[in-house]
Amino acid sequence: MTEPKKTRTTVEIYNRSYTIIGDEPASHVELVASLVDQKMNEIKDRNGYLDTTRLAVLTAVNTMSDYVKLKEDYDQLLDLITRKEEK
Amino acid sequence: MTEPKKTRTTVEIYNRSYTIIGDEPASHVELVASLVDQKMNEIKDRNGYLDTTRLAVLTAVNTMSDYVKLKEDYDQLLDLITRKEEK
Repeated sequence: MTEPKKTRTTVEIYNRSYTIIGDEPASHVELVASLVDQKMNEIKDRNGYLDTTRLAVLTAVNTMSDYVKLKEDYDQLLDLITRKEEK
Repeated sequence: MTEPKKTRTTVEIYNRSYTIIGDEPASHVELVASLVDQKMNEIKDRNGYLDTTRLAVLTAVNTMSDYVKLKEDYDQLLDLITRKEEK
């Protein structure tokens, strides 16, 4: 069996280049990179001086927080559907 | 009107301290911080040498990718419910 073909996508985030290798199409990687770049700039604007590492960690924290909250909503929705189907 | 009380939570991520100020309870911030710390360590293990800034940016990219995919699933589920209710 052959391995599924990996895509290599080079993106720019906060003025540095990253080559992302993975199973996702280039369009997904480009969208994600632009969202991260945007969020880094937003956090930078809301705070005073932050070194780039702290800024990137806070961007990851912010995104993870959104993920955890969305996951709770998703699970509630799934639970709602399951309960409806049991009726 | 008084401002809603902000929580200040100090967490450790990848051996550095961060004080997160926000509306979320400390338990949410602590969970999120531990997930980010865990993901940074996983990405570090999967790659060779990465400076901490690049590691943190890649952690943000990875988390944003999960968020975007979950958002698509969430929207599909919402659409499913809406269509069911229209029947």
